[in-house]
Amino acid sequence: MSVLIKNGRVITAADDYHADIFIEGEKIKAIGKDLPFEAERSIDANGMLVFPGGVDPHVHLDMPFMGTFSSDTHETGTRAALFGGTTTVIDFVLQKQGHSLREALDEWNGRAVGNAVGDYSFHMAVTDYNDKVKPEIKEMIEEGITSFKTFMAYKGALMIDDRQMIGLMEEVKKQGGLINVHATNGDMIDYLIQKHRSEGKLTPLYHYLSQPEVTEAEASERFVDMANYTGCPGYIVHLTCEGALNAVRNATRRNQKVFVETCIQYLLLDASLYEKDGEGAKWVMSPPLRQKKDQETLWAGINQGLVNVVATDHCPFLWEQKMMGANDFSKIPNGHPAIENRLELLYSEGVHKGRITPNKFVEVASTNPAKIFGMYPRKGTLAVDSDADIVIFDPDKKHVLSAQTHHMNVDYSGYEGWEVTGKVETVLLRGEVAIDQNKCLVGKGYGQFIKRNKVVGIV
Amino acid sequence: MSVLIKNGRVITAADDYHADIFIEGEKIKAIGKDLPFEAERSIDANGMLVFPGGVDPHVHLDMPFMGTFSSDTHETGTRAALFGGTTTVIDFVLQKQGHSLREALDEWNGRAVGNAVGDYSFHMAVTDYNDKVKPEIKEMIEEGITSFKTFMAYKGALMIDDRQMIGLMEEVKKQGGLINVHATNGDMIDYLIQKHRSEGKLTPLYHYLSQPEVTEAEASERFVDMANYTGCPGYIVHLTCEGALNAVRNATRRNQKVFVETCIQYLLLDASLYEKDGEGAKWVMSPPLRQKKDQETLWAGINQGLVNVVATDHCPFLWEQKMMGANDFSKIPNGHPAIENRLELLYSEGVHKGRITPNKFVEVASTNPAKIFGMYPRKGTLAVDSDADIVIFDPDKKHVLSAQTHHMNVDYSGYEGWEVTGKVETVLLRGEVAIDQNKCLVGKGYGQFIKRNKVVGIV
Amino acid sequence: MSVLIKNGRVITAADDYHADIFIEGEKIKAIGKDLPFEAERSIDANGMLVFPGGVDPHVHLDMPFMGTFSSDTHETGTRAALFGGTTTVIDFVLQKQGHSLREALDEWNGRAVGNAVGDYSFHMAVTDYNDKVKPEIKEMIEEGITSFKTFMAYKGALMIDDRQMIGLMEEVKKQGGLINVHATNGDMIDYLIQKHRSEGKLTPLYHYLSQPEVTEAEASERFVDMANYTGCPGYIVHLTCEGALNAVRNATRRNQKVFVETCIQYLLLDASLYEKDGEGAKWVMSPPLRQKKDQETLWAGINQGLVNVVATDHCPFLWEQKMMGANDFSKIPNGHPAIENRLELLYSEGVHKGRITPNKFVEVASTNPAKIFGMYPRKGTLAVDSDADIVIFDPDKKHVLSAQTHHMNVDYSGYEGWEVTGKVETVLLRGEVAIDQNKCLVGKGYGQFIKRNKVVGIV
Amino acid sequence: MSVLIKNGRVITAADDYHADIFIEGEKIKAIGKDLPFEAERSIDANGMLVFPGGVDPHVHLDMPFMGTFSSDTHETGTRAALFGGTTTVIDFVLQKQGHSLREALDEWNGRAVGNAVGDYSFHMAVTDYNDKVKPEIKEMIEEGITSFKTFMAYKGALMIDDRQMIGLMEEVKKQGGLINVHATNGDMIDYLIQKHRSEGKLTPLYHYLSQPEVTEAEASERFVDMANYTGCPGYIVHLTCEGALNAVRNATRRNQKVFVETCIQYLLLDASLYEKDGEGAKWVMSPPLRQKKDQETLWAGINQGLVNVVATDHCPFLWEQKMMGANDFSKIPNGHPAIENRLELLYSEGVHKGRITPNKFVEVASTNPAKIFGMYPRKGTLAVDSDADIVIFDPDKKHVLSAQTHHMNVDYSGYEGWEVTGKVETVLLRGEVAIDQNKCLVGKGYGQFIKRNKVVGIV
Repeated sequence: MSVLIKNGRVITAADDYHADIFIEGEKIKAIGKDLPFEAERSIDANGMLVFPGGVDPHVHLDMPFMGTFSSDTHETGTRAALFGGTTTVIDFVLQKQGHSLREALDEWNGRAVGNAVGDYSFHMAVTDYNDKVKPEIKEMIEEGITSFKTFMAYKGALMIDDRQMIGLMEEVKKQGGLINVHATNGDMIDYLIQKHRSEGKLTPLYHYLSQPEVTEAEASERFVDMANYTGCPGYIVHLTCEGALNAVRNATRRNQKVFVETCIQYLLLDASLYEKDGEGAKWVMSPPLRQKKDQETLWAGINQGLVNVVATDHCPFLWEQKMMGANDFSKIPNGHPAIENRLELLYSEGVHKGRITPNKFVEVASTNPAKIFGMYPRKGTLAVDSDADIVIFDPDKKHVLSAQTHHMNVDYSGYEGWEVTGKVETVLLRGEVAIDQNKCLVGKGYGQFIKRNKVVGIV
Repeated sequence: MSVLIKNGRVITAADDYHADIFIEGEKIKAIGKDLPFEAERSIDANGMLVFPGGVDPHVHLDMPFMGTFSSDTHETGTRAALFGGTTTVIDFVLQKQGHSLREALDEWNGRAVGNAVGDYSFHMAVTDYNDKVKPEIKEMIEEGITSFKTFMAYKGALMIDDRQMIGLMEEVKKQGGLINVHATNGDMIDYLIQKHRSEGKLTPLYHYLSQPEVTEAEASERFVDMANYTGCPGYIVHLTCEGALNAVRNATRRNQKVFVETCIQYLLLDASLYEKDGEGAKWVMSPPLRQKKDQETLWAGINQGLVNVVATDHCPFLWEQKMMGANDFSKIPNGHPAIENRLELLYSEGVHKGRITPNKFVEVASTNPAKIFGMYPRKGTLAVDSDADIVIFDPDKKHVLSAQTHHMNVDYSGYEGWEVTGKVETVLLRGEVAIDQNKCLVGKGYGQFIKRNKVVGIV
Repeated sequence: MSVLIKNGRVITAADDYHADIFIEGEKIKAIGKDLPFEAERSIDANGMLVFPGGVDPHVHLDMPFMGTFSSDTHETGTRAALFGGTTTVIDFVLQKQGHSLREALDEWNGRAVGNAVGDYSFHMAVTDYNDKVKPEIKEMIEEGITSFKTFMAYKGALMIDDRQMIGLMEEVKKQGGLINVHATNGDMIDYLIQKHRSEGKLTPLYHYLSQPEVTEAEASERFVDMANYTGCPGYIVHLTCEGALNAVRNATRRNQKVFVETCIQYLLLDASLYEKDGEGAKWVMSPPLRQKKDQETLWAGINQGLVNVVATDHCPFLWEQKMMGANDFSKIPNGHPAIENRLELLYSEGVHKGRITPNKFVEVASTNPAKIFGMYPRKGTLAVDSDADIVIFDPDKKHVLSAQTHHMNVDYSGYEGWEVTGKVETVLLRGEVAIDQNKCLVGKGYGQFIKRNKVVGIV
Repeated sequence: MSVLIKNGRVITAADDYHADIFIEGEKIKAIGKDLPFEAERSIDANGMLVFPGGVDPHVHLDMPFMGTFSSDTHETGTRAALFGGTTTVIDFVLQKQGHSLREALDEWNGRAVGNAVGDYSFHMAVTDYNDKVKPEIKEMIEEGITSFKTFMAYKGALMIDDRQMIGLMEEVKKQGGLINVHATNGDMIDYLIQKHRSEGKLTPLYHYLSQPEVTEAEASERFVDMANYTGCPGYIVHLTCEGALNAVRNATRRNQKVFVETCIQYLLLDASLYEKDGEGAKWVMSPPLRQKKDQETLWAGINQGLVNVVATDHCPFLWEQKMMGANDFSKIPNGHPAIENRLELLYSEGVHKGRITPNKFVEVASTNPAKIFGMYPRKGTLAVDSDADIVIFDPDKKHVLSAQTHHMNVDYSGYEGWEVTGKVETVLLRGEVAIDQNKCLVGKGYGQFIKRNKVVGIV
């Protein structure tokens, strides 16, 4: 199959020009002015932006958590992603403490393989690092799983201690991988949760108050210290606040580079939502939403080159699941749906409002995650021989986000009624038109596992 | 004229792939696999890198200084630049104190127009800001001169005081320009020069000791403070040291963005050269070379996203000119030839040695300067409709830098005998083959003045 | 004459105990429990605090400024100081640009000698440093004037440039003195004053807005950089804000020690006063009052050991003098009366409210200024052989500050109606009861010039 | 009994003067010039310094550790302290995990009561904080044990996790106590120890390499974060390095005050000693000795007011005990004898060499520890009604430190052959001459337990 996208405004992390894009099979073959190719399908992109499919490196699909499962499967989640212009996601495999990485991978493959509609890869969450697990690091990298997620919180379930952390870092560095980290101080949070519960403080606001900025700032400082000592490439997921970004800023003084991801919600929403009557549970996620001053820090961090990725930490739960914690914030499944909304929100609030350039938009939403995690140049850009993962985007069309119209398997939206400027019109994934006219044209199982390369810690 | 560059490895600030590039007239028309175009000239780039022509935003050609003129004219300087793969340079027009910007521009045009071989633009150095000059800011921006150079040193000749600086910043911000700054504390330096001279300390080493790190760190702190207060986009030229970069790093904590340029020599050479018998004058430039620890800081700064540009501050003087200061370091014309060597040195020491990625190489040597200074997308990238300013580069060819073989009009090299890996083979400028087989194929006057756009302070 | 102060609670910078103090002539002879000495006069200090007379190292008496003179002479000013428990002040001699230090000293001696009621010394303000002035540094130190005030503001009148500054620092260090600095960026301030005036913004609020925090932060950074480079002991006068204290805090990272003085008004008052109808001129001083967050910073700085002195910058003007600027803030004589109120305010707001310990109160109000400026152990403590400069203080007595009752020669109070807890009851100066029962018992001319020792930069 | 010390140079944290001191019973009664008192004993202190007895707030006597006991008992240890001019020590009671604080206190009382020669108090090390222990905090404070030691290292033995830490902080703050912390990252250290052992790296050098600077910097950052969040007064024991002090310096930016203790060895010795043939075990202590740059940081920190106390962490082991680890650094009992040498070394290297003033010497060695830990004004100064704990010190006498001559129960010295200037000549403890002419004149059991007051976190 061949496709010719005509006369769009092509945006990459570096470029911005008008051209045609010619696709043959799964790949981009040429980009040029008035390309003389015949294609089976031609798409008029006049007036449209044409940019690489989004790469969301932080999603949790069909994930067992807090006694339930996140409500998007690999099918529904990657389909919703496609609707939102995100063609590749990286999901998290969670090792069970006492078990091997391989077992976890097998379990996740069981849920994902044959089900995904969009492309996906896996991070491997190492929740129990020991001598038996050590040789599996190399094995996983050979499988194309080159990033290892660690948790500094959720003791007894996911958390590893600092001893395991630096052991793991040394091995991951040696094998050519990278450490992702959920950097919040689990011990402090556990104390505050229990304290608030014992005091009968059970509303969603106390979810927020149990994870104050210091719990994230502290763990971020600790992580960058350990990454500096071991020399292992590091990546802080879902960084939310000034205190945590300052840990990274301080580390620049010793010539250190650590990658930083924030999520779309931390750029746009704030903790006042926890006090919204009856609705606070919608935004119960970890880390929690922060303050306006933190939003400013994160936008600035993007332009400073210190915040490299805008992801989602998509982890949806139905309202009835959320209501498991109706009377106790600590029982509300943590997570928030955003996989479908990320690009439109980031474009609207970022590019449209003049906070970031179009190039930066592509860089943080697609190119950087692809590069950092070893999927580039296959993913993350519009270039010859790259996968033809392409978004055709109307930069001027205004529309309103709503659970009524979204495709995520969740019955509320964290952005209900939010008007955005700019709309994903058509999406190609590996040369196929996957989304067009608000329809998904590719089916369950179309999504492929993307084997990733070793990483180097600079992009 | 049309040209087809076949099968090179195309590198941009974002991309890295193998493709053909088709050029028609001055512009790139298409990039693709096995492009089916007929071209008047075809170049086999198999095994070669193909990247955008370098943009050197900091050169001083035919500049009156310290009683003489820098020894490269716009002809010889831009030609040497082309030999080294740099297709566009930005030269500095210097207002004379007591005179208008227009007069200075006329003078510089008199020297440049019709002489340049490669493309060029101008920064306007404002050395005397007052109410008469104020309306000229807008005028200059309309002429396409959108960046305004300021000196915090050279009192009585080039320096403006902080009062003028913030006045200028407010006007430049209003009109859509950007302030470049030579950030060293001129008063401190003047004191130290005079002190050393009065003590009979006259060798080139005392040039270095008259400009200690603190003189640059201090002025950089002061500049970022003023830029923050006024909100004017700022760009620090030729930043050399840890103390100065730390000023920028500290400023990130208040969500500030300032652009930083370093020069190739500060990444590679150090102050021990000032003690080289009889040769120290070669490296008398301002700021002076620093220490190894500063080199490490600057390389790290590039990967941290805090150092955005690698330029040259090319300002050559013949050895006999340098010898005006044979007996007194303060009479040695300040400056160093590098316009021809920048890309090869940066590739060899940066990419070849694994310190930076090929993308980063293009970003700091071409794309960022073009973007920051409003020449993008015409310059700074390989993209459809961009100027066909293209370097075809052999990444494996080793050769040795020498005054014997360079094309700069200067009878010594700061890098004599330095072996680099990687060589500029062919250079196109606006679709013309300008350099090939060690010959320059375009003549005096081929170079055009590049009118620049307003700037926004983010890229 | 001999005096026995019986049974007070004696407070020094280190100690806090109940004892008798026996004084013979000008000196303390013994401190002890139930001392068996016969004295000509006995004072019952039961229930009272007994602490060393305050040392205010920053006052401007009878100073020519802005076309007038500050309204307290050495007589009225030092008398008011005594009423407030301050037994020694350091006044500023101002060199006239183009003239010698000696001439200025002669002029000031002409106004002070024979007039002062309380003890005093001089700082020498060097406003024009050059080769002629250089040898006078040593001369002044031999006169007992060991601290040299510099201004980074008031260009054309008091300001020296950075060249002069480091030259002066090198000489002062060599001779065993210390540099005091008024650290605000005069050029920036001049620009903002003129800008506001040209825009018709003439109310006292624009005095504040013409000296934003950055003007002080910047100059403080610059000063600590220069002090670090030269190694000269440095002392920042009237530091008011977080930005400036952060300059000092950052400097601690390079193992630097700089002394910091704040003034009582910056701990207690804030910039909202400039908007008080018709009254703003009362608080027109430089630097201006700041924000609440700056007050918190300063109180914290005292307990961190980074703010070493609380002074006044006493520089009073009658309301009719202030009204010279009724229609233009830039014509309001800068200054504020506080010499009489400092100790009571600091005790009440500091010790009484639990922000600082009684020891710290004595340390910052008396001992540290005496030590830093070379008057210790003669001044600044209660110890054997020290001058019997003693305050007997009722810690519980509440009273209200008012121009109706104060002794400063100024017809308004910056603290009108402010209730303080704690009152100066009796003051001894060199063994004489100078203040008792709200009466001054020593006359014009009783005050002596205190010759000061060389300084070392640590205390 | 009454004593008259005649004509010494009296030094306190604030003062420095010549006077007589009259003592009656255990207390100082008067200080003055030519005091007219009759005393049973008169001591001529002409030419001598007279300063308060040292307070060493960090000693480990008769402590069970690593399968043995530290070799100084409360008898030998406090006697050696007296020989060195230290009249009061604070020893550490160690809770056993799973047991109560009370049990531990009983055990320690069993060893200390009736045995101590000099005065002592206890810190309570909380190694297992839980709901049963919580009410004991108040109880201990009522016993006069107001400081609670915590370990962030030694997992499974002494370490508490961050959850326990903030719980404990909240309770200690509420009850009026203070947290001491051994701030090193135990998990990282455990990893490195095991790694080095598994690689056969067993010499004392690997003790050092198992506790790199980052392990202390990290834990210090974490501790100040937690102290800031809870508002609990905090005190970092034995801080050794730049990285850790920078954690405190950074915290000053948020207006935080944390007390810092270093130990004499970290000011004077460096890690090169670990490579001394056959002797490295002498200096195996935790944290280990550091680098010269860290010594500079610590001396600077003292003058900056950020390092408040110089202690010893005295924890001696006989050479045969040290040799338990002859073949494995991890089996060498950690600790170092210094209780007797602290004052003389600090005077000689600090005051005599001009790094600190005599006042600062007394402040960090006696007054500050007494104040911070609630023993002031009884201990820590020379003032009326204070305990007559007095050192008479010859500032000029040179002598050489040696195991041959010291009184600590340990058969080597960490300072063998070190010449110091200044010697403790006579020591009084509560009015008794305890040391004179190199003899100890008070016996076992003379030392008293000092009940301490609540603390406030400022001094």
